[in-house]
Amino acid sequence: MKIGVYKVAMASPSDVSELTRLIDTKEINPAEIVALIGKTEGNGGANDFTRGFATLSYQLLLASRLGISTNVVGERVAFAWSGGTEGVLSPHATIFTRSPGSGEVSGSRLALGIEATRPILPEEIGTMIQVKEVAAAVQRCLKQAGISDPKDVHYVQVKGPLLTPGSIADADARGKKLVTRDPNGSKTFARGATALGVALGLGEVQEADLSDEAIARRLDLFSSVASTSAGGELKNCEILLFGNSPAATSDFRIGHGVLEDVVDAAGVKSALFDAGLSEPISPAELSRIAAVFAKADASPNGLVRGRRTTMLSDADINYERHARAALGAVIASITNDPAIFVSGGTEHQCAPGAMPIAMIVRV
Amino acid sequence: MKIGVYKVAMASPSDVSELTRLIDTKEINPAEIVALIGKTEGNGGANDFTRGFATLSYQLLLASRLGISTNVVGERVAFAWSGGTEGVLSPHATIFTRSPGSGEVSGSRLALGIEATRPILPEEIGTMIQVKEVAAAVQRCLKQAGISDPKDVHYVQVKGPLLTPGSIADADARGKKLVTRDPNGSKTFARGATALGVALGLGEVQEADLSDEAIARRLDLFSSVASTSAGGELKNCEILLFGNSPAATSDFRIGHGVLEDVVDAAGVKSALFDAGLSEPISPAELSRIAAVFAKADASPNGLVRGRRTTMLSDADINYERHARAALGAVIASITNDPAIFVSGGTEHQCAPGAMPIAMIVRV
Amino acid sequence: MKIGVYKVAMASPSDVSELTRLIDTKEINPAEIVALIGKTEGNGGANDFTRGFATLSYQLLLASRLGISTNVVGERVAFAWSGGTEGVLSPHATIFTRSPGSGEVSGSRLALGIEATRPILPEEIGTMIQVKEVAAAVQRCLKQAGISDPKDVHYVQVKGPLLTPGSIADADARGKKLVTRDPNGSKTFARGATALGVALGLGEVQEADLSDEAIARRLDLFSSVASTSAGGELKNCEILLFGNSPAATSDFRIGHGVLEDVVDAAGVKSALFDAGLSEPISPAELSRIAAVFAKADASPNGLVRGRRTTMLSDADINYERHARAALGAVIASITNDPAIFVSGGTEHQCAPGAMPIAMIVRV
Amino acid sequence: MKIGVYKVAMASPSDVSELTRLIDTKEINPAEIVALIGKTEGNGGANDFTRGFATLSYQLLLASRLGISTNVVGERVAFAWSGGTEGVLSPHATIFTRSPGSGEVSGSRLALGIEATRPILPEEIGTMIQVKEVAAAVQRCLKQAGISDPKDVHYVQVKGPLLTPGSIADADARGKKLVTRDPNGSKTFARGATALGVALGLGEVQEADLSDEAIARRLDLFSSVASTSAGGELKNCEILLFGNSPAATSDFRIGHGVLEDVVDAAGVKSALFDAGLSEPISPAELSRIAAVFAKADASPNGLVRGRRTTMLSDADINYERHARAALGAVIASITNDPAIFVSGGTEHQCAPGAMPIAMIVRV
Repeated sequence: MKIGVYKVAMASPSDVSELTRLIDTKEINPAEIVALIGKTEGNGGANDFTRGFATLSYQLLLASRLGISTNVVGERVAFAWSGGTEGVLSPHATIFTRSPGSGEVSGSRLALGIEATRPILPEEIGTMIQVKEVAAAVQRCLKQAGISDPKDVHYVQVKGPLLTPGSIADADARGKKLVTRDPNGSKTFARGATALGVALGLGEVQEADLSDEAIARRLDLFSSVASTSAGGELKNCEILLFGNSPAATSDFRIGHGVLEDVVDAAGVKSALFDAGLSEPISPAELSRIAAVFAKADASPNGLVRGRRTTMLSDADINYERHARAALGAVIASITNDPAIFVSGGTEHQCAPGAMPIAMIVRV
Repeated sequence: MKIGVYKVAMASPSDVSELTRLIDTKEINPAEIVALIGKTEGNGGANDFTRGFATLSYQLLLASRLGISTNVVGERVAFAWSGGTEGVLSPHATIFTRSPGSGEVSGSRLALGIEATRPILPEEIGTMIQVKEVAAAVQRCLKQAGISDPKDVHYVQVKGPLLTPGSIADADARGKKLVTRDPNGSKTFARGATALGVALGLGEVQEADLSDEAIARRLDLFSSVASTSAGGELKNCEILLFGNSPAATSDFRIGHGVLEDVVDAAGVKSALFDAGLSEPISPAELSRIAAVFAKADASPNGLVRGRRTTMLSDADINYERHARAALGAVIASITNDPAIFVSGGTEHQCAPGAMPIAMIVRV
Repeated sequence: MKIGVYKVAMASPSDVSELTRLIDTKEINPAEIVALIGKTEGNGGANDFTRGFATLSYQLLLASRLGISTNVVGERVAFAWSGGTEGVLSPHATIFTRSPGSGEVSGSRLALGIEATRPILPEEIGTMIQVKEVAAAVQRCLKQAGISDPKDVHYVQVKGPLLTPGSIADADARGKKLVTRDPNGSKTFARGATALGVALGLGEVQEADLSDEAIARRLDLFSSVASTSAGGELKNCEILLFGNSPAATSDFRIGHGVLEDVVDAAGVKSALFDAGLSEPISPAELSRIAAVFAKADASPNGLVRGRRTTMLSDADINYERHARAALGAVIASITNDPAIFVSGGTEHQCAPGAMPIAMIVRV
Repeated sequence: MKIGVYKVAMASPSDVSELTRLIDTKEINPAEIVALIGKTEGNGGANDFTRGFATLSYQLLLASRLGISTNVVGERVAFAWSGGTEGVLSPHATIFTRSPGSGEVSGSRLALGIEATRPILPEEIGTMIQVKEVAAAVQRCLKQAGISDPKDVHYVQVKGPLLTPGSIADADARGKKLVTRDPNGSKTFARGATALGVALGLGEVQEADLSDEAIARRLDLFSSVASTSAGGELKNCEILLFGNSPAATSDFRIGHGVLEDVVDAAGVKSALFDAGLSEPISPAELSRIAAVFAKADASPNGLVRGRRTTMLSDADINYERHARAALGAVIASITNDPAIFVSGGTEHQCAPGAMPIAMIVRV
């Protein structure tokens, strides 16, 4: 297996011109595209439609180039968008191709497994049913990626549904109980359940410790490589599992780390080294970075380095937006590139207050 | 002259408990307080009343301790608040005392001159009248601070009025013309005119090059040490001029630098060295930092490190808030302290796209 | 008892000039002021400090005119501010005086009882403890107002604390459990518990039906005259109970009604008639309206007149702000005055989806 | 000519299910669709992509049903979206069909002319060049609609481009001067120029009175039937001219009126009568209303009915959003339907402070 990694800038949520060019110049074979992870310039909330607009736009491009319908593109290619480009964050997409590969390389290289769950019903969002569906899909991903030791997994991106006014009404009509009736508030439960699904699938937590009540509450239970998002534009959970595998022949490796807070510059550098960068971090070394994926969150007590922040009490700007703005700027100040995937909410994706980060680096 | 520098955290805009404690424990003689520069947790716009609330709260404390009215406190103590603690920025105030001092010290030390202009009428905001009033006040500040060479000036904080619906109505009633009728939009002109006033007062620009038309437009004309803000809560311009003077015996020195963009970590470090910090930047060195004052702005073309940011097109969050969030996080990632003064808008305070930063460091 | 009702406009949260004038011209005896209910131009959320700023500003005025401290003013005068003047809503305060009165009048007239609870601890917010404290205070209010039949009560304004980052930290330090850890989310519980306290105090619900679990959940339990708010600026609950009493000799009467949704113009008119206005609603009749107090909320299913609204899914603007903007405009289109008290959140203050409204009308 | 008018609700910007059903049930012949005017649930600003997403979604539906490309649909069907469903406003689209018609009807009936200008360059936005291009298109519309007397025109919807960061960069690259460099601020100029184009095309203003300097400044020059919007998603101006023509055999008539302010309930009723509704406004009469198109704006002095509003000084929520929320609620309180087209900004579309409104009513 050989995984290709291509970052494309976007002038708007519907701008697919850079991928178009890469296909036109034969740098990318559109038939080999299997996934896309990107940032769009919406508000990142329940009424952020930039993600759906971007998905449709890329699907139309691929449908046209591959001579298939957008529905078939949807089945073939996983899309994981995070809305919200606060601060310096720059709208972009990282496109992944998968091809058989050939030849031999030294060491483990970037591998990727992609699976989806069945549609998750509104009443299942934020429950153990969702946890188990994701865990099963994660295990299928491991096999697909050719990774036998879960320690070789560095980043598992999961995108699943949140509750929308429409799905709440649907559950109501069927007399079903929901974990919350607040669309924006449902993100916490949706992200938490899928993160615990990753943790369960990788053996980071034991099923006996999990329950409906634990979700979004027992925050001492967590994965260390999950990155989960929730959006109104999809019904099932899509899992993208990245790791290094001796069976892969990609030109890339992946590494990860944990940030202590949103201004943890040292933690960002550690993750870069874990992925394979060498000291000193010269411009040449920085140019090897292919993609950065991080999660940003407000610290539970509102403090950063002992000082009070106002993220959690701000009624005008959601705390996730503050956190993404801060972490995105710190990462860009080190990597020299604001086209970073920083999404919000770390429920069950690390210890409370910490934040996971993963990097793909050219070998 | 001996200048004291005290940073106090604030749990809300009306929280004066830390200064109360410093007075109670005799660490600060309230009669020696001459100025306060701080960040409050409002939105930073025309309807941000946290600045006025904080001013009133500190005035009431000092009035009570000094046995004078809040009006007399207002005449004795200059207040410069910037609203908006986006990202990790932490609400706080830096309080400055001035006392005769005694003994001898080696080298130039922190000196401070404080002056105010007469009230600026609504129709004068953003015009050459305001520029000249500020320039004259800057020259009075130089004399007061004992600074003969403008090169020893590192930071000139000016706070002046912006247009409010009330002041616009007042001008209308008197048949006067305004530079704009948009309260939030008037900040650009108000900050620009006071910055050019600083530049004129320090000889950085020539009066012959200035005109009403140049304000907020001829952005190649600028000061390199001005930091100007505009708020609805005051009528005149207050100037706080900081530099190093051989006549001062303070325990502090001040330095400054220019940042190339909002993620310029190297520029932050350069400014720290200019102020007197030594390499490597150890925790001990960092603990010498008494205060950081910076300006944040969106780059004119919307690009940061060649990537498109969305600050300028965002209709939900003002670009100043994006810029402050980004720069505040980058500075805190280096200095280890989010209680930083980062205010928005750099019109005539540096070259377009750049951002001024000043640091006070314990000797 | 004679209750005076005076509406004053405010040019900013600290503008007390209209009350100053009314005192100067002897229209109001400041010693008779017992309460103030008003709207300020903040965001209405956990970081809205305009309410505290306005309270301090009025307290300073009254302290100065009465020769007492602001603390004593705080004990004598109840302040109930609601932040958020969306749409056409205009910042203002309605000031209530209470004097012995004299002479005789026909019919029942406006009466007012004012009581406060003890401070409510963070862990008590949103619990039965708070419900019972409020209920007891409501019964003291009835006695004070000279109202024997709860049916003569038309409006009970309660303002109590919400959870703030500070009070959450305080509870954490003492190892106490909270109903939620989200400051903005705590408003639902805080408003719900005080509304149930009113319902219990007036016999609208039975104590046996209430429990911690019922608060903010059993929405079929409600008062029909409560209007409750929560803000970070106070620690106890202040209750203002308005009704008509044969013992009162005020120049005013009060009435109330229930709105079916935020565009229920007919409901607004019904409440006006309940308060004593006559058809047709001529300018002369409208000029008799002294004050309007209403609650606005999003409908639980997001629908208004069968059409989907986007209040509940909007991540940029809180649903309360949408609802206040809508209802405020509809009321002003009928009463001809945008200086209306419309506050957000109707938990346990009416049937889900409905909204209470009260009017004070000159006899 | 026979014009059909169909209002469809939308569950999201990409929801085309209601039109799909109308086509499936043969109620609408997709080949006869010539225009769509609708509201989407974005923020209405420069970064509102819901309009583009909705356009693409409807184009894909029509392309599929008509067996043509989305580009050809774009040439055949005019789309005019306004973003921002504040308060109770409900996302929806009104779809217009045009067919030859047959038979005879009494009186003038709804007629529609649709034309577009050539692409307007960034440097032409807000200038006389744009004014004249629109005026010429308006005259072509008159001819197309079979309207000889401009007095029979009741509503001219124009949608044109605004400045985006991209178009600003384009103009910069070509060394062209722009009326402003602020994307959100460019809406004022863009809407103003197209409105003056309508006024010029209909003879409401004389060309001799117009100039570049007059645009967005000489607000005493205006159309009384224009409704203009600006969005980043299109390059040229699309004009939809509605009036009544004796040559039309539609089942509808159109009328219009002018509102004095955003709470002018009487003005809303007058417009309904102008369109043909009879008193009293019974449910049966209300059911005849097919579509309402209105403009909302803040009053220039910030006052509504003599009271200060805070629309213009609010830095968190744009004044257009406040105004739309207010007016939308007032209209819905009368018409019983929140699916109304209320868009923001009235530059040159009526006297300052007033607001145009048009209604289509079933005969």
